[in-house]
Order: sequence, then C-alpha cells, then structure tokens
Amino acid sequence: MNMAKVEATPLVGIIMGSQSDWATLEHTAKMLEQLGVPFEAEVVSAHRTPDRLFEYAETARERGIQVIIAGAGGAAHLPGMCAAKTDLPVLGVPVKSSILNGVDSLLSIVQMPAGIAVGTLAIGPAGATNAAIMAAQIIGLSQPQIANNVAQFRSAQTDKVASNNIPGNI
Amino acid sequence: MNMAKVEATPLVGIIMGSQSDWATLEHTAKMLEQLGVPFEAEVVSAHRTPDRLFEYAETARERGIQVIIAGAGGAAHLPGMCAAKTDLPVLGVPVKSSILNGVDSLLSIVQMPAGIAVGTLAIGPAGATNAAIMAAQIIGLSQPQIANNVAQFRSAQTDKVASNNIPGNI
Amino acid sequence: MNMAKVEATPLVGIIMGSQSDWATLEHTAKMLEQLGVPFEAEVVSAHRTPDRLFEYAETARERGIQVIIAGAGGAAHLPGMCAAKTDLPVLGVPVKSSILNGVDSLLSIVQMPAGIAVGTLAIGPAGATNAAIMAAQIIGLSQPQIANNVAQFRSAQTDKVASNNIPGNI
Amino acid sequence: MNMAKVEATPLVGIIMGSQSDWATLEHTAKMLEQLGVPFEAEVVSAHRTPDRLFEYAETARERGIQVIIAGAGGAAHLPGMCAAKTDLPVLGVPVKSSILNGVDSLLSIVQMPAGIAVGTLAIGPAGATNAAIMAAQIIGLSQPQIANNVAQFRSAQTDKVASNNIPGNI
Amino acid sequence: MNMAKVEATPLVGIIMGSQSDWATLEHTAKMLEQLGVPFEAEVVSAHRTPDRLFEYAETARERGIQVIIAGAGGAAHLPGMCAAKTDLPVLGVPVKSSILNGVDSLLSIVQMPAGIAVGTLAIGPAGATNAAIMAAQIIGLSQPQIANNVAQFRSAQTDKVASNNIPGNI
Amino acid sequence: MNMAKVEATPLVGIIMGSQSDWATLEHTAKMLEQLGVPFEAEVVSAHRTPDRLFEYAETARERGIQVIIAGAGGAAHLPGMCAAKTDLPVLGVPVKSSILNGVDSLLSIVQMPAGIAVGTLAIGPAGATNAAIMAAQIIGLSQPQIANNVAQFRSAQTDKVASNNIPGNI
Amino acid sequence: MNMAKVEATPLVGIIMGSQSDWATLEHTAKMLEQLGVPFEAEVVSAHRTPDRLFEYAETARERGIQVIIAGAGGAAHLPGMCAAKTDLPVLGVPVKSSILNGVDSLLSIVQMPAGIAVGTLAIGPAGATNAAIMAAQIIGLSQPQIANNVAQFRSAQTDKVASNNIPGNI
Amino acid sequence: MNMAKVEATPLVGIIMGSQSDWATLEHTAKMLEQLGVPFEAEVVSAHRTPDRLFEYAETARERGIQVIIAGAGGAAHLPGMCAAKTDLPVLGVPVKSSILNGVDSLLSIVQMPAGIAVGTLAIGPAGATNAAIMAAQIIGLSQPQIANNVAQFRSAQTDKVASNNIPGNI
Repeated sequence: MNMAKVEATPLVGIIMGSQSDWATLEHTAKMLEQLGVPFEAEVVSAHRTPDRLFEYAETARERGIQVIIAGAGGAAHLPGMCAAKTDLPVLGVPVKSSILNGVDSLLSIVQMPAGIAVGTLAIGPAGATNAAIMAAQIIGLSQPQIANNVAQFRSAQTDKVASNNIPGNI
Repeated sequence: MNMAKVEATPLVGIIMGSQSDWATLEHTAKMLEQLGVPFEAEVVSAHRTPDRLFEYAETARERGIQVIIAGAGGAAHLPGMCAAKTDLPVLGVPVKSSILNGVDSLLSIVQMPAGIAVGTLAIGPAGATNAAIMAAQIIGLSQPQIANNVAQFRSAQTDKVASNNIPGNI
Repeated sequence: MNMAKVEATPLVGIIMGSQSDWATLEHTAKMLEQLGVPFEAEVVSAHRTPDRLFEYAETARERGIQVIIAGAGGAAHLPGMCAAKTDLPVLGVPVKSSILNGVDSLLSIVQMPAGIAVGTLAIGPAGATNAAIMAAQIIGLSQPQIANNVAQFRSAQTDKVASNNIPGNI
Repeated sequence: MNMAKVEATPLVGIIMGSQSDWATLEHTAKMLEQLGVPFEAEVVSAHRTPDRLFEYAETARERGIQVIIAGAGGAAHLPGMCAAKTDLPVLGVPVKSSILNGVDSLLSIVQMPAGIAVGTLAIGPAGATNAAIMAAQIIGLSQPQIANNVAQFRSAQTDKVASNNIPGNI
Repeated sequence: MNMAKVEATPLVGIIMGSQSDWATLEHTAKMLEQLGVPFEAEVVSAHRTPDRLFEYAETARERGIQVIIAGAGGAAHLPGMCAAKTDLPVLGVPVKSSILNGVDSLLSIVQMPAGIAVGTLAIGPAGATNAAIMAAQIIGLSQPQIANNVAQFRSAQTDKVASNNIPGNI
Repeated sequence: MNMAKVEATPLVGIIMGSQSDWATLEHTAKMLEQLGVPFEAEVVSAHRTPDRLFEYAETARERGIQVIIAGAGGAAHLPGMCAAKTDLPVLGVPVKSSILNGVDSLLSIVQMPAGIAVGTLAIGPAGATNAAIMAAQIIGLSQPQIANNVAQFRSAQTDKVASNNIPGNI
Repeated sequence: MNMAKVEATPLVGIIMGSQSDWATLEHTAKMLEQLGVPFEAEVVSAHRTPDRLFEYAETARERGIQVIIAGAGGAAHLPGMCAAKTDLPVLGVPVKSSILNGVDSLLSIVQMPAGIAVGTLAIGPAGATNAAIMAAQIIGLSQPQIANNVAQFRSAQTDKVASNNIPGNI
Repeated sequence: MNMAKVEATPLVGIIMGSQSDWATLEHTAKMLEQLGVPFEAEVVSAHRTPDRLFEYAETARERGIQVIIAGAGGAAHLPGMCAAKTDLPVLGVPVKSSILNGVDSLLSIVQMPAGIAVGTLAIGPAGATNAAIMAAQIIGLSQPQIANNVAQFRSAQTDKVASNNIPGNI
C-alpha cells in the first residue's frame, strides 16, 4: 500500500502499540485520507517505550494535533495512558488479540475510571475505520470542509446500500 | 440535586433511553456543569419513541448542538441509531443493566459496523462522567475557555490524589 | 443458488444489515421456500439506511407482510429498530460476527427492554433456518396449508434421524 | 395480585419450570390480561414431570392454544422440549438464575439446533412482558381486536415517554 | 475405524444428538473398548425424536444398561432430558458447538436444577474420553475385572508421562 | 441442623476445600441422608493440606468408600487432584465463588484433560444436592435398597410438582 | 486498624490506583506485617498522576524496594505501567470492580504483551493476601529470616485446617 | 530447536502438564537462555503423575531451584498444586486450550485462595516469555549479573521499537 501521509500539518496522530497493530490501524489511515484529514502514524509502545509515549502525548497539542487515535491489543494501556498525559480527545481502537479475540483489549481500553476519558470504538478494523470517521466529525466542528467530506462519505455510503442487493433479487 | 441547565445555548445534548437512566446520566450533567459546558437533557427512547429520536438527531446540529451523549442499557440502540441520523460526534454511555451488569449495553453500543461511529465510554457512572469530559475536550478544540476549564479540572484532580492517602500513612 | 422468490404476495419480509449477512439469511429463504411461504428479501441497514428501514417497517403490514425476519451482526440494531416501527411480529437472527462470534449480535437483539418484542433465534445459520420455521408456524395458525407443510417437514425430519446412524452400527 | 384468568378459552399457554419462576412469568400474565388475550398458566417441569410436559405440548393445539410461552432458568430445557412436541409457535423466557444471572438460561433456550424453533425473549421480567406482547402480535394477525389492543398499548407507551422527563427539566 | 461393538450385552448406552456428534463421541466408544466395557451407540435427538429419547431412557435399565453417556451441542437438552426419564446414572458430554465453542453446550448440560443429576465432563473429545473412564469406574464398583482394566490403564498412563519428555532434554 | 452421620460404614466421602464450603456441601449431606446412603464429611484442602488430600484419596477405597464427592471454589483443584489419586468415581461440586460466581470453580473442575475424569454437577447448592443423587444412583446399581430410595424420591418429587401451582390458579 | 509501617527500610512498595482500593490492598499490608516484611504503601494513580507513577517506579530500586505490589481496578494500567518503568519484579492485584466484578481488572493486568512481565494474583482480597506471600517468598530467597517466617505461616495454616471441621462432625 | 540446557546448576525449574505444552513453554526456555539463567525443563502432570509432581516440588529447593515456572492448560492444576508443596516462588503460565482459548487455564491458575500464591502471566507464548523475564528479575535481586542481563534486554527492546515503524513512514 502506498500510505503517503497527507502533506499538510497533521491534525490526527495515530499511535499503536506494536508494528503488528498496523494491519488494523491502516484502516484508520485509509479512512482519514479518504476524508481529507492530514495525519501522522507511529509505533509508540506504552510498555516498551513509556517515555516516548509520555513525550508524544505531552507535545501533541503544540504540534497541532487535535485528536489522537491509539490502537493496542491485550492489556491495552496505550489509549488510557496517552489520555492521562494530554487534554486532547483520545479515541481508542481495541486491536483483536490472538488469544481472547480482543475482549481483553476492549475492556482494558473502555473501562477507564472517572476522570480520564477514552472514546472507544469497536474491536478490530471496523473500530479502526470508525475512529477516523469520529476524528473527522470532531475536527469538522471547526473545519467546514472536513465536515463536508464526512457528509459526502455518509451520503455515498447510504446510496451504496440501495444499489446492492441479494443475489436472488437480481 | 439542583440540576438547572446552564442558561446559554446548549452545546451538548444528553439523551437517554428511559427515565431510570437518569441516575447514570446525571453524572454527565454534573460534570458538564462543572466544566462550564451548556447542555440539554431529555428522555428519548429508540424503541418506544423512534420518530422522536430521528427528529432529535436530524435537528441537533441546526439547534447548535456540537456533541450528543446518548446513554442506554440492555439492547442499547440509542447511541448507534442517533449516530445513524447525524454527522455530529456521538458519545455512548452503556448503562449498567439489571441482569447482565451492562455487558449487553456495552456490546450493543461499542460494536458498531464500519461506517457509523460511536465513541463509547465505560459502563455506568464512570463512563457518564467521562462522556462529559470528552465532550468538553472536543468543544475545547474551538473554545479556549472550555479547554481551560478541562485543564484546571485535570490539574485539580491530580493534586487531589497527592493530598489523599491510605489510613495507615496518616 | 437459484433463489427465485415464490410468485405469490410475500407473507414474510427478510431484511438484513448488509450484503454479507446473506450467507446466513439465505438459510431462511431456503427454508421458507421449502415450507411454501412466499417471501421477499432485502438489504436494509439500520445504520447506513435508517430512513429506508423506517419506511420498510411502516409499510410492511399494508403490503401484506405478516412476519418480519431481521438478521444482523455486531451491534445489531436492525431487529429491535424494526420492531419499534411496526406491530407485526419481528423475529431476530443474530449473525455470527467476525470478532466475537455473534455474542454481541445475540445480546444486541435479545436483550430488548419491556415494551418492544423481538423473538430471537440462535446465532448463525441454525437460527436463520429456525426463523423460517417459526414464521411458518405463526402464519400456519391462520393458513392450514402452511401448517400442514410444517407438520410434514417436522415428520420427515424425525424420520430422517431414525434412518441415519453412526458408522460403527452399519 | 388478583390473577384471575380471562374467562374465554385460553389462546396462550404459559408454562414454567418451577413455582419460583412465577415471579418472572406473572409479568407475562399481566401483560396478556392488559392486551385482552385469554390464557392459562401452569407449572410443568421438563425435568421433574417430563411426561406431563409431553402431554401438555401434544394436546395444546386441540385445546385451542395458539402460542405457548415457556419460562425456565438454569439448564432451561422446557421451551425447547415443548417445541419438540408441538407445531405451535413456542416463545421462550429465560428466567434469571441465581448463580449465573440467566446467561445459562438464555443459552439453553436460544441456541436451538436447526429444525426446532424457539422465539426467545430477554432474560427476566422484560422478556416475560415481551413474550406476552409478541404472542398478542401473533394472535392479532387473525384477530383484529387483539391487534387493535396491541396498537393502543404501543401508542400509549410512546405517549408516556413524552410526558415523562428528567428531574432537572421540570 | 472399525467400531465393532463388543459382543457382550451392552452395559453403557452412548446416545448423541446428531450424527455429527459422533466425531466427539467416538472417543467414548474407543475408550470403552480399551477398558473392556460392552456398549451400544445411537443417534437419539431430544428435539427431533423426543419420543424415541423417552423410550430409550425408559427401557435402558431393563435392557441391562448401567450407565448412559449422552453427548450434545448448543442448547444441549439430551443429557438432562434423558436423566429426567431414568434413574440410571447419566453422564453428559458437551460437544463443541460451531459458534460458541461449547460454552452453550456446557451450561445447558451442567446447570441442572436440584432433583435431576447429570455428571458432566469436559467440552469435546477430552470429555468424551473421560465419560468412558468414569463409566468404567462406576461399573467397576461391582465388576472387579473392569476395575482392574481401569487401574491398568491409569498405571500405563502414568508410566507414559515418565518416558516422554521435551525435545531439548533428549 | 442435626447432621448426625448415618451409623453404617460410609459409602460416600464428602470432602471440601474449606469450612466455608460446608454451606454448599451440607446440601449433599442432607440428600444422602434422605436417600439412606451412609457418608462421612471432612475439610481437606488441596492447597493447604495437599498431603492429607493424597492420603485421603489413596485410602478411600480400602475404607469402603465407593464414591467421593469433592466441592471447592475459585481455582478449585480438589476434585481433579482427588481423582488423580484414586480410581473411585469422583463427583465435583463447583462452589459459588465470591468474585466470579463460580464460573472459575466450574471451569477448574469440569475442564479436566483426557485421562482423569470428574463428573461435574451444577454450581452451588443445586449441584451439591445432585451430587448426592448421582452417588446414590451409582451405588444403587449394586444395592437395590438404595436404588429403591432414589426411585421413591424421584416419584415423590414428580408428584409434588402436580400438587403445587401458581397463585392465580388457586 | 493500626496499620503502622514496620520501622525498617521498606523492601516492598504497595501502590494502588485510588484510595478506595485500600480496602483490598490492606490485606497485602496485614500479611506483609505478619510475615515480618517491611513495606510502604501509597496511592499512585496511573491515570490521574502518571508522572508520580513514573517517578515512583524509577526510584524504587535505589530506595531499597525489592518487590512492587500494584493494585488497581477496571482498566487497571497501574501494574503494567509500573513494570514498564522498573526492572524490579512487579506483582499485580486485580481489584474487584463495581460493574464487572474485576474481570476487566484481571484482563487489564494479566494479559501483558511479551517483554514486560506482571505476576498477577487472584481478583480481590485473596489476591492481595497472596501478593504479600509471594513477595515474601521472593525476598526470602536472599533473606533466610523471611523465608523462615513464610515456612512458619504455611505450616500453621496447614495445621489450622486439621483442627477445623464441619459442624456435623463435632 | 537446539534447546541445550545451560551447563550451570539450574536456578529455574520449568514444568508443564503435557508434552504438547512445550510449544508454549519453549518460549520460557528461550528467554531464560537469552537472559543467562540456567534452567531445567520437564513434563510433570498434576493429574497423570501426581506423586512425581509432589516429589518435584518437595525437592526443588534443595536442588538449588529458586523459581518454578509451571505451565498447563484447561483445568490447570499444576501451578497451584506445585505451590501447595513448596515455599519457592511459583509462576504460572496458562496454556491456550483448544476449546476455550485458555480462559479455563487462566482462571484455574490465577484464582488461588488466600494462603497459596501463584504469580500468573498472560495466556500463551507472551506469558511464557514473561515468566522467564520475571524469574530473571527475581533471581537478579541477589545475582547482579542476571539483573544486568535483564536491564540490557529491556534497553535493547526499547531501542528496537524506535527503529521499527509503519510501512507508510518509510
């Protein structure tokens, strides 16, 4: 895949716990590209590179990032720890884990205690795609062009259902 | 509780599936108040008042709402169906259900298919509180005063941990 | 498969959340055909085409539909939202989801709050087949020919067990 | 409670696995009464009185029963075994079990193999109420008065949501 | 496999809900053979052939059967309903179901209400094998030769562990 | 409760992991008494008194015990480890654990590997009662008086259902 | 409770995510005291005081701490993030959460990816007690007095089982 | 694989319930080798060779073992029973079971009652690797060279994340 980053200053930061999570998070990247939202993407491990995570989260706002999308699997601490170190909205994508199908990832991300919020999406690629859509909806509140891109995507998506149908009806 | 709505035009719309969900969603209302975010709150049932839900979602943006927070329990369709009818960011709060402790609520809200996003918070009051914080973080991207309120809340929260401690240490 | 619809006015409406659900719901179609129950089948997504769903549910009775069978996976809102918009009996088929094996689908469909009912069948093809049988049993209450078809199917099914047996007994 | 049975010939047969299930199934009885559907109710245990269950199921149709509602908890075999012995539509109500909250009841009822169908409702009182509504919807297909009662109930239910609201809005 | 039944009068009756369960229950048959316990094996479906099940259970004792081993998957009612119709000890083998991995089978078999007992083994082939061992242990209480066979099997099994070892240790 | 042991040589040995499990296992004791099966009952902890457990299991047969019933909660190793040290049939009763409701107890007891069998009953008091019934059914295979007691208990249990009924029917 | 810290330099550091976790972790403190292991105890929240956590973990070794015991509930990131910042052995205690009974806590703590280890104990007070025992076993490898204390505790524990017994045996 | 044991006296004993568990536990062996910790590895089944397990655990300390790592699947009693027979620290590795993905293994190992501790790692290979790391951390408390090896491994692991990155960024 040619995953060239959009040239403008990134508005969304995608981080993931390990390189293998890219198979899930590239769905985020593709959808952000489709919606015209500039982004950056990096592997930042909460457990293996905790200092890098803290630095990433602390400097994200000043670098122009508006939304952070963090994906991780298993005992997935990345989204919550990122949210602990920034006031930017953080969206969490539970990556499907090899043993427990992402139930561990989901609970580790969504069950945050009161005080630090992570907006959690579905386990796996569907959640990764939707994290991008939600980020665009958030950014679209102040950038009408992006709101417009979301509206067009949604409208096209609706139309596509109507044109499909089950084999027996064709 | 004196749950007077902030007088300004609401920026957040809180909806919930039944009156009994208020015990959970009032945590959202209280935190929004604390963070200075004007809001409205209504009972809108996806199942018992589907048309009202559709009208609510369709008109939210033009009424000035920027974020919708939807809380429901059991087969909780309110957040997802609301998101299906608006491009505004929708946050979902899984209400603890009496039989399955909110596992059904959580899965019904978070496991959305690719295309329609709901940012899901923790089950119960913690999630309700965090939905307010996340809404304020989102709105704070374009309203510095609210971003400031969030920062102050977060800072005070951090300080409070330091001043507490376990009985044996006093 | 040649999934020609029975020529008579459909008595059962099969709807499903996405085209990929057809692999499950075609078991419904095949069994309805076997039981001589005329039906129609369409992709109607609660999330991507909410207005179409509402229109479908609102007009089903006047078009002669007696039972609606709705199949969906993940945060499966189709059966419940369909039931919210019609007084016809609605049967729900939880489609096996790729991540959680349909546990999310099942809970999203079956855990309806008091007031709006969805008769839920087993996850996957077995449930899809049984939705057809139950629809035929319901319609058979007023159409003796269909009741008769069900009785014959059941009787043949019983006989088939007796004629089978384990390899070692042959 | 004065649970006098409607005087007309019962159209719905409520059976339950033990006397303690009545706390759940009386919600079925109350809703059937409210919807004007004559019914009978009996304790019939699949495990302790298997012959009585078989006789009940075999004779239900000739006694005028159109829908059987079976409620049971734990390893809940009553609905499925009843369905194995009759062609009438059988609705299953998973009773909340004391140890596993009705997850065992739900799976024992809903996961029927292809060939024998049980339309399953939610665990506990909500499911018991909805079993009555679904039975009335089924019977209403051929008895317009009962269909009318359902429509009125649904309409009143919708109106009631609108008249309620959260404390802070009053 | 040559699954010839032992020529003597069967002491164990193996029944299973469908032909596909044989892949699991043949482990029972093989182990019974190894332990020298004569048995019979049949497909008897609780749902599709309820009368046959009742007849099987009612006549088992007089035919000389001492233990019944019943295997089934999904909403697995076979072991419990068999136990409801006989005083012989009934052992249940939860077959791994295609959707829920046998969790449904396990709960449907093991969570019997007080009054009717099913001794439940592990899900799948391990449980099938162990059902045979337990049946032999039960029959061995009055037949010393079979008790002896069990003791020899157990002893050989223990010895086999000692002779194996991990590759690196060889 | 007057839990006097039957005076005859015990045929059933009840062991439990801790004194608090007696609240569950006394249901076993009461039912054995009712069925006329002599028994003994002791606290034997797999974890705290492993040597005592091994000695108990090794000497049970020579002391005349025919069936061992072992109850434990949480990481419940007692039934499986007991079965590892004796060829007598071992029945396992999963005690409801305070945190996970006995799901941990159930899986720790029932999921034995092929080679060592534990016949597992339901979680909690129902399972404790049924362990006694199953032990009596096993012993009844060679002691007609006990088989007779089981038959009478079962018959009385069936009759009791018929004499009960729901309040509204009285 | 008089939870005076042992006067010697602490060898174990107990940290917990919030003050409410003390109800669980005080079981750790009591057992450490009983085993003669000097310790310290503090509230350190991964989410609300992430910098404090990092500083705590980074300086623990130089302050003489040999084992860190971290307890937290829900999306419990404290043990894993602590382990990410120190090479000392870290033991994790999943606190029972109010909504999901600690299943979320357990999975968030135990399912660590390869590379950073947390030795996880049981959910709730039992795990808190055992974390202390395991810490003493670890420290006892180089401090014979503490190993001796563990041995005495274990021996007394074994004796206590023998002296207890069930009411009916007294 | 050439799994030659380190020549020095083993400090860690790896035991596993069956030969098939070696596929998981070899990850422990490899990591111990990498960290320079001498070890031994054996198949010791709690259920099939209980006496061998007891002997292993009783003699481990005198043979110089400092940490025991026990891996098992399903009703995994090996770690807990080993801990019941030694005062050495015991780490448990839940092996992924074929039917329930290791949920049974995890609960059987981690949910130990107060009094006997098992430090539990993640299900499967990740947990097996981490058991080795934790053992090295424990032994490193008194052997500076091993502590140094752990520190170097951790540091290299951190550096490796920085050098990797997602395809699109290259």
